[in-house]
Amino acid sequence: MNTARNSAADGPSVAVVGATGAVGREMLAVLEQRAFKHREVRAFASVRSAGQKLAYRGGELVVEALTDQWPPSGGGAIDCALLSAGSGISKAMGPKMAASGTVVIDNSSAFRMTAGVPLTIPEVNPLSVAGLVRKSGGGGGAIIANPNCSTIILLMAVTPLHRAFGVERLVVSTYQAASGAGWQGMEALERETRAVLGGEAASATVFPEPYAFNLFSHNSSVDVATGRNVEEQKMIDETRKIWSELGVGLGGELGGSGVRLSATCVRVPVMRAHCESVNVTLSRETTLAEVRAVLARAAGVRMMDDRAGNSFPTPLKASGGDDVLVGRLRVDPGQLPTGVGAGVDLERVSTRGFDLFVAGDQLRKGAAQNAVQIAEMIFGGS
Amino acid sequence: MNTARNSAADGPSVAVVGATGAVGREMLAVLEQRAFKHREVRAFASVRSAGQKLAYRGGELVVEALTDQWPPSGGGAIDCALLSAGSGISKAMGPKMAASGTVVIDNSSAFRMTAGVPLTIPEVNPLSVAGLVRKSGGGGGAIIANPNCSTIILLMAVTPLHRAFGVERLVVSTYQAASGAGWQGMEALERETRAVLGGEAASATVFPEPYAFNLFSHNSSVDVATGRNVEEQKMIDETRKIWSELGVGLGGELGGSGVRLSATCVRVPVMRAHCESVNVTLSRETTLAEVRAVLARAAGVRMMDDRAGNSFPTPLKASGGDDVLVGRLRVDPGQLPTGVGAGVDLERVSTRGFDLFVAGDQLRKGAAQNAVQIAEMIFGGS
Repeated sequence: MNTARNSAADGPSVAVVGATGAVGREMLAVLEQRAFKHREVRAFASVRSAGQKLAYRGGELVVEALTDQWPPSGGGAIDCALLSAGSGISKAMGPKMAASGTVVIDNSSAFRMTAGVPLTIPEVNPLSVAGLVRKSGGGGGAIIANPNCSTIILLMAVTPLHRAFGVERLVVSTYQAASGAGWQGMEALERETRAVLGGEAASATVFPEPYAFNLFSHNSSVDVATGRNVEEQKMIDETRKIWSELGVGLGGELGGSGVRLSATCVRVPVMRAHCESVNVTLSRETTLAEVRAVLARAAGVRMMDDRAGNSFPTPLKASGGDDVLVGRLRVDPGQLPTGVGAGVDLERVSTRGFDLFVAGDQLRKGAAQNAVQIAEMIFGGS
Repeated sequence: MNTARNSAADGPSVAVVGATGAVGREMLAVLEQRAFKHREVRAFASVRSAGQKLAYRGGELVVEALTDQWPPSGGGAIDCALLSAGSGISKAMGPKMAASGTVVIDNSSAFRMTAGVPLTIPEVNPLSVAGLVRKSGGGGGAIIANPNCSTIILLMAVTPLHRAFGVERLVVSTYQAASGAGWQGMEALERETRAVLGGEAASATVFPEPYAFNLFSHNSSVDVATGRNVEEQKMIDETRKIWSELGVGLGGELGGSGVRLSATCVRVPVMRAHCESVNVTLSRETTLAEVRAVLARAAGVRMMDDRAGNSFPTPLKASGGDDVLVGRLRVDPGQLPTGVGAGVDLERVSTRGFDLFVAGDQLRKGAAQNAVQIAEMIFGGS
């Protein structure tokens, strides 16, 4: 079954668990595209999907059924497992995998808030996995959590500002794609849209609301006490944890209650890239020109801010790409110091409030790509 | 040509100008549905659309060509003209119509910021047209401006809070429907979506960006100096003017530079209702319970805030309805006073920051319905 493993000479052996899901397939695509050396890839999914064949680097991978045996039969130890099979599988198998010596990079929410588990965005808090680097193989297992997609996309854009100026407060409204709910979400959007265009009445099939030409508050459950849905709470909690790991004196002091962040998470009828409208209050005054300069040199960020051409980040522009797109950079007129009036040069005025608009591929940087980047940091990439 | 006028016994004679457009048709629909007494309705549009027949109250209206003659030939004086034929027509014809004794209710942006022209949302600033009330007919012409759709929908939700607590600052992100660009916008969304579902590559046809399963920064032009697009600037300027007309000591004092408002306006692939994610900072502390109580009794607002059922305002729920839907009411955790920690009762804690999510039919309350409500105030409604 060698072809099913797509073996190469050296590097770690990698398992993609949940390989037939939307994120799992993207993990394989990212592994194909990037220069991350790996000895073999094995693809795992539920018994239902076992035997399915997935194209990979000119050959094919035969999907194996994930059992509770780890390392799985039919091969040697697995150095690195990229998990995207839901929280249940992660909780059941993650600790066992780590105990066997596998470095588990988990895309679910299972361990994100667990103390001692790094929650890592390579461009943001690389030091969170500094102790785990094992370029020569060996070294024992571990669990590393991949943050939630909307957190990753937000923090790619605002962490450079946090490092440069300190971020005091964030107000975020999201425009989230169907892909956040996997194939089922994307299929629902397509199927429901076809039905409506065919003259049928809009009806909900997968999400709590009809999706065709509609949008709705994020489908995760809502905490009755706070009014926040799980997606919003994740953004708050994960931002707090990630920024507290920066280790540069930032994060912890963001107000008595931690990061001052309000999120409103909304599902829009878009296939696979999330957008976020972000209002930021910095800790100290600076200029738009300085903000622009900081973002222009931020890793993994691509500025797309053509005012004259009205050309800014969109989901389609972000889809399939590696970078988080940032644009609509503006001074927030609501936070201009009192007395600053019309006619001031908004590129040069000192202020603390700015607006921006961000787009990132939910399946790539928001999930699969970030996980593979973590693997590259640990096992040595290109 | 009596049938074309749909005559009734009394009330003003009404002209709908731009009657074949998306807003014009909705004006006729609203006139049909509401109890506003009118003697006759005449429908006007460009020469291209003249002769077209529009169903109205069991009969039909034959669309007449708008010329520069006013009052138009073939009838008597027009008491009230509802204009939605673009800024150019409004600028060219509005003053002439008003001079002839017609009360012009203009849906374009032509006169919104003109000093002395009321900019009116009946539930918000009814006193702006107090001097124009003429229930018995006669009284001379005037121009009254209908605010922009996204301004109306925002202010329906936040003005009750402004009256009760004072609003210090707003951060708004919009989710705007295709209908804001008229039939052409809705047709583009449908046509482009069919093409993509048929396997074609996404391409832009009417808007600057592809619309199928995509979203983009509002298509109005962007001011290179401020970075704001026209839609965003309208929301700022119109809010300032409308609130300054409240005449209750509010509005003018909202910071040295007027209303502290940041808007990010985004076009989403939805047909006809706009949504807005709103973060509000009040002038004084209050509780979520009080905010909820104020909104529950606000005219024209319908609360839809079912946390347990994850049921909140959506474009589809707002479409075709009269009310602005408000939900996702929450305490903004980013504005909680320092020291307020976990476990506090968020319904009862005193704070100044709140979040909400609003949906309103762009063609109805955002345009046609608001215009007809203004006519009702002036000429006497039900």
